[in-house]
Amino acid sequence: MSSQKVLNIDNLNPNVKTMQYAVRGPLPIRAVQIEKELASGAIKPFKNVIKANIGDAHAMGQKPITFIRQVIACICMPQLMENKDMPKDVIEHASAILNNCGGKSAGSYSLSNGIEIIRKNVAKYIEKRDGFKSDPELICLSGGASESIRNVLKLFINKSGGKKVGVMIPIPQYPLYSATIEEFNLGQIGYYLNESNNWSLDISELEKAYEQSKSQYDTRVICIINPGNPTGQVLTKENIEAILKFAFEKKLFVLADEVYQDNIYADGSKFYSFKSVLMGLGEPYSSSIELASFHSVSKGYMGECGLRGGYVEFTNIDGKVFTEFKKMTSAKLCSTVVGQAVIDTVVNPPKPEDESYKQWNAEKTAVLESLKKRATLVKEAYEKLEGITCNPVQGAMYAFPRLHLPAKAIEKAKSLGQEPDFFYAMSLLEETGICVVPGSGFGQKEGTYHFRTTILPQPELMKEMMERFTKFHNEFMKKYQ
Amino acid sequence: MSSQKVLNIDNLNPNVKTMQYAVRGPLPIRAVQIEKELASGAIKPFKNVIKANIGDAHAMGQKPITFIRQVIACICMPQLMENKDMPKDVIEHASAILNNCGGKSAGSYSLSNGIEIIRKNVAKYIEKRDGFKSDPELICLSGGASESIRNVLKLFINKSGGKKVGVMIPIPQYPLYSATIEEFNLGQIGYYLNESNNWSLDISELEKAYEQSKSQYDTRVICIINPGNPTGQVLTKENIEAILKFAFEKKLFVLADEVYQDNIYADGSKFYSFKSVLMGLGEPYSSSIELASFHSVSKGYMGECGLRGGYVEFTNIDGKVFTEFKKMTSAKLCSTVVGQAVIDTVVNPPKPEDESYKQWNAEKTAVLESLKKRATLVKEAYEKLEGITCNPVQGAMYAFPRLHLPAKAIEKAKSLGQEPDFFYAMSLLEETGICVVPGSGFGQKEGTYHFRTTILPQPELMKEMMERFTKFHNEFMKKYQ
Repeated sequence: MSSQKVLNIDNLNPNVKTMQYAVRGPLPIRAVQIEKELASGAIKPFKNVIKANIGDAHAMGQKPITFIRQVIACICMPQLMENKDMPKDVIEHASAILNNCGGKSAGSYSLSNGIEIIRKNVAKYIEKRDGFKSDPELICLSGGASESIRNVLKLFINKSGGKKVGVMIPIPQYPLYSATIEEFNLGQIGYYLNESNNWSLDISELEKAYEQSKSQYDTRVICIINPGNPTGQVLTKENIEAILKFAFEKKLFVLADEVYQDNIYADGSKFYSFKSVLMGLGEPYSSSIELASFHSVSKGYMGECGLRGGYVEFTNIDGKVFTEFKKMTSAKLCSTVVGQAVIDTVVNPPKPEDESYKQWNAEKTAVLESLKKRATLVKEAYEKLEGITCNPVQGAMYAFPRLHLPAKAIEKAKSLGQEPDFFYAMSLLEETGICVVPGSGFGQKEGTYHFRTTILPQPELMKEMMERFTKFHNEFMKKYQ
Repeated sequence: MSSQKVLNIDNLNPNVKTMQYAVRGPLPIRAVQIEKELASGAIKPFKNVIKANIGDAHAMGQKPITFIRQVIACICMPQLMENKDMPKDVIEHASAILNNCGGKSAGSYSLSNGIEIIRKNVAKYIEKRDGFKSDPELICLSGGASESIRNVLKLFINKSGGKKVGVMIPIPQYPLYSATIEEFNLGQIGYYLNESNNWSLDISELEKAYEQSKSQYDTRVICIINPGNPTGQVLTKENIEAILKFAFEKKLFVLADEVYQDNIYADGSKFYSFKSVLMGLGEPYSSSIELASFHSVSKGYMGECGLRGGYVEFTNIDGKVFTEFKKMTSAKLCSTVVGQAVIDTVVNPPKPEDESYKQWNAEKTAVLESLKKRATLVKEAYEKLEGITCNPVQGAMYAFPRLHLPAKAIEKAKSLGQEPDFFYAMSLLEETGICVVPGSGFGQKEGTYHFRTTILPQPELMKEMMERFTKFHNEFMKKYQ
């Protein structure tokens, strides 16, 4: 039958067929099925599924920040601003945004690049963070950072030069990059992070990857994820300087994915934005390296994934290219106004003198401290297990432990036509309800096996998860020893 | 300098360069500038800009529907459900959605195809509307209908057959289609609507357009906009049947853009969904024609453009293709949960026995009746003017009047390197502050000139707009006679 359809698997967009996005791949799909089986009374050795596959804080029990939700409720239902219990700064915040909406309604389309006052607040936030100028006209708001990242990569699609345009990405990487590169028919050039040195980024590895791909690709882009996803490392200032110099030398456009900039846990680790390091480098770098930096409301202490807010800031972009970028995004009209408003609450939070400050600060601090505790706890728990090694979680929301699988387990997996870490993760899911993502979904050195787990389950659930995990892991290792 | 940039206008994605989206093109960009000039004290022959260029109801003063805003405010700030003044059905509605969100928070990612309970409510709505079965598993929610339309068109990108895949679209059309076809490097095949017969869709014109493009394109898709944008016509059942039979015969996948399904004004006009007409046709059509139907929360009586909600329902899609479609959309994680919630309020509105019903019904009816009045008023006003003819606005939110421009005006425009209707619309904007979109942005028969104006300004503003317009038009015609 299939071949009789007008649109069938044989004539479907070939890049759609080959792209993969493991974070929502077979494991999470099976996890949803298992949840349904449990709901309809199936007997399993566990009572609930623990979704440690995706950086989805609220789904794992993290509570929304009151200030953020008050502002967006006021925007959706302006009568709430007449309520005497509504903090004054919330009302000011919501009014300022609504005054910048057509007809003072969140139901109006915004400018395609986002509401002007919010872009101005983003620029102020960046200036305060970095100590360098930021131009609101070079900031574009989007529905999560993913949309901005895809929009920027889209600019590079061009096969007129004969070779595919090459994009350098870390391995392991967040699979939005590999999926988008595949969908856009660009060329993926992986550079390996150094697992034996806390997933650090070695410039020699960048050189190697670049040189090896030279004959195949016209390499014009380098993507950096800092803090790292799935690897949790935080880059030093010196490291970022070296990366920027490499980009300058090789004439690469830099994409800096900085969505975890608020999630720094390790002593001695500090977040440096690519923008600030670039500006600090001075000439000839600071006025020439083209940079797109991304941020999101989905991570940090906010975890507002479902509300979809993010932005890109361009530095040194060609003026004509930027005009074309804005034209391109205009056909999609605009990103959600509520998501834009959430960005505003993140870049322009309550000040110490504001009515909401105390509660906002207490809630924010509690979330970040709890994440920090769990970052340590997770690493320690995995390290205790035989057959697992785990780098510290310096930042972001994930651990990426390495599995030292017995030969028999690898054979078994291969006999089933599965990657060994996929086989391990699927067994874990079926036997314990814990859903993690196999390392093969992010990329890893040949012959090494990993999985990504979030640090997001709340402490009680995290404890239970580690108990279930330990039992499964020890039995698995014994079975295949 | 430009050529020294890594990414410059010469190596930019060529399809981004050539795509155009007139609804947000040079006219609206100039309109925003003029607003800023007015705000900083510039003296103009008018006090405000009237944005009749975009179907953005709230920006033109339409008030949000209370029920919709109460539900989303409760979703954003669940404490509101404890408020005694909050209608019981609003609370039930919001609770049902939150119970289907991870951690009961709108801040959690939803499934990539949307929250299950909302997809089930969409299916019930479609079943009630059409009288035929609808499967929630074949419905995917998105950030506005635009995102779904782009996602479906993306499936057809495939150059392996040598020829570009061709997509048939009406002329005039909504430029999302032409922009997306260009961006995706597909082939555009325009079929002309018949202006002399109320913009009707003649099958003979479809045949002609198909035959003429046969040698150039592998034509596999036909897009229909009903009610029409920018042309406002409403297709009859017989016409839809004939289109479906044409699609069957030529083996075309059908895209039915039905975002204006609630906006029907003319006596004798009725909305028939492509799905219902297809099912009513029976075999061999009903089980074989592949159809994607689109709806949105941005139009109708809701006008919630800024909140970004829409969906696609597939009929007869190949199972393997649908699996790939879902995989593709998963890399974008999910559409905004608030936008999804708005879809829910639209497909599952208050019932007569509910506390909110009376107010909801009164508000809805008032909006639709007012739009109906303005649809008539606009046509009558334009028809009175010399040098303008205008078909009735049977549905949607636009009039698309034809300009019979004097030869001297056409010459003048050409001497400036402009399309004559662009020249006319830009003069209108500069002299009156009224922003409309030239017909050339939608496509029109060679040698004819039009503009699209919305019917959205509220009655008082509409009156003023028609006064300003009439004065300008008469002077313009006199000047170039």
